[in-house]
Amino acid sequence: MSERRDKIPEPTIARLPSYFRCLVELQEADQEIVSSEELASLAGVKASQFRKDLSHFGEFGIQGLGYPVADLLDRIAAIMQLDQDHDVVLVGAGNLGSALANFPGFSRWGFRIVRIYDQAPDKIGRRLHGVTIRDVADLPCPLGLKLGILAVPPSGARAVAKLLIDSGVEALLNFTGSNLGHPDSVVVRNVDMTHELAILAYHLTGPLSLDEERPAR
Amino acid sequence: MSERRDKIPEPTIARLPSYFRCLVELQEADQEIVSSEELASLAGVKASQFRKDLSHFGEFGIQGLGYPVADLLDRIAAIMQLDQDHDVVLVGAGNLGSALANFPGFSRWGFRIVRIYDQAPDKIGRRLHGVTIRDVADLPCPLGLKLGILAVPPSGARAVAKLLIDSGVEALLNFTGSNLGHPDSVVVRNVDMTHELAILAYHLTGPLSLDEERPAR
Repeated sequence: MSERRDKIPEPTIARLPSYFRCLVELQEADQEIVSSEELASLAGVKASQFRKDLSHFGEFGIQGLGYPVADLLDRIAAIMQLDQDHDVVLVGAGNLGSALANFPGFSRWGFRIVRIYDQAPDKIGRRLHGVTIRDVADLPCPLGLKLGILAVPPSGARAVAKLLIDSGVEALLNFTGSNLGHPDSVVVRNVDMTHELAILAYHLTGPLSLDEERPAR
Repeated sequence: MSERRDKIPEPTIARLPSYFRCLVELQEADQEIVSSEELASLAGVKASQFRKDLSHFGEFGIQGLGYPVADLLDRIAAIMQLDQDHDVVLVGAGNLGSALANFPGFSRWGFRIVRIYDQAPDKIGRRLHGVTIRDVADLPCPLGLKLGILAVPPSGARAVAKLLIDSGVEALLNFTGSNLGHPDSVVVRNVDMTHELAILAYHLTGPLSLDEERPAR
């Protein structure tokens, strides 16, 4: 028996993409059966953790044999809604936004950036990965897209998030480094690259510097 | 009394950058005292969580008054080693690497990308944010840097990670979407943007598509 979708622990959900990626790789290598130990090791978790994560979604695998790769892949894809393509709106066509628009990993999993908005006059009208950059002031309401990526400077983050949420976006990937102050009905994943470096810095045994070349600041 | 550095729970460490960022904002707004409730709310956690996180590092704040902003900021900066600059090596000068080299958030917190490597002949010798892109085959050993960013395609991830680790890098920010299979002595933070979108897709009520414009695939 599987649990209600909204009762699944968030850390379990956050591990599903790793399982999915490992299963894709196993399938590409023509492996038909995988044990929980092998898959867990590939995904970098304990086998008991993997089995516990799966148990939230029902019965999987064959006792004493393992998991048929194709079947488990299909079921995890269905659970994650990765058995269908998802259209995505991107706001912010600067350096990071441009990199995201061209990021090959997205399309490989069925994520297609189909709308790109910015506010800079020199960007509006240009094309990025085949999509015309439009003026964020022209963002329609409703937009007709549920998934959004925010790659604007921190100062504009809240206002743009509000625009997207008002236009019907339900889930936001937030690269701005700002707290969006969003309503509970909207799901937000924050990717703060500076925070990630800071977490690494905590673990360093001590700093080292090179003196020869200084980057522009 | 504070605990041994390596005994602090990783989720606590992962929340410190948020506290640091909020304190910087409070200081910029000339606020001198902050309560645990206010700071926790700004950082998007519960006040009890914030107090528990701090308790790992010793005694903070003044009973009944709150925390002096400047003092707490200094102490958290020292705990995170953000009271000093950190020089960083970046491998991968493609779209994402270029965006990272130009990312303003890094220098604001004292992270300076001082070495950039790639393997593409058309990139080597060009400059990115004031730093000359060098041939990854010429990566010196030891490199003299402890912090590295990996922004290469998945296929090259493990080999480049090994090069960096052999050259003395202790901590890696991994954007490749690959499991690096690194030794335990090296700290790795994985930022997988496709996984983040997939986690959001899980939460969608159902997909929506626009038909007019298709991006290049």
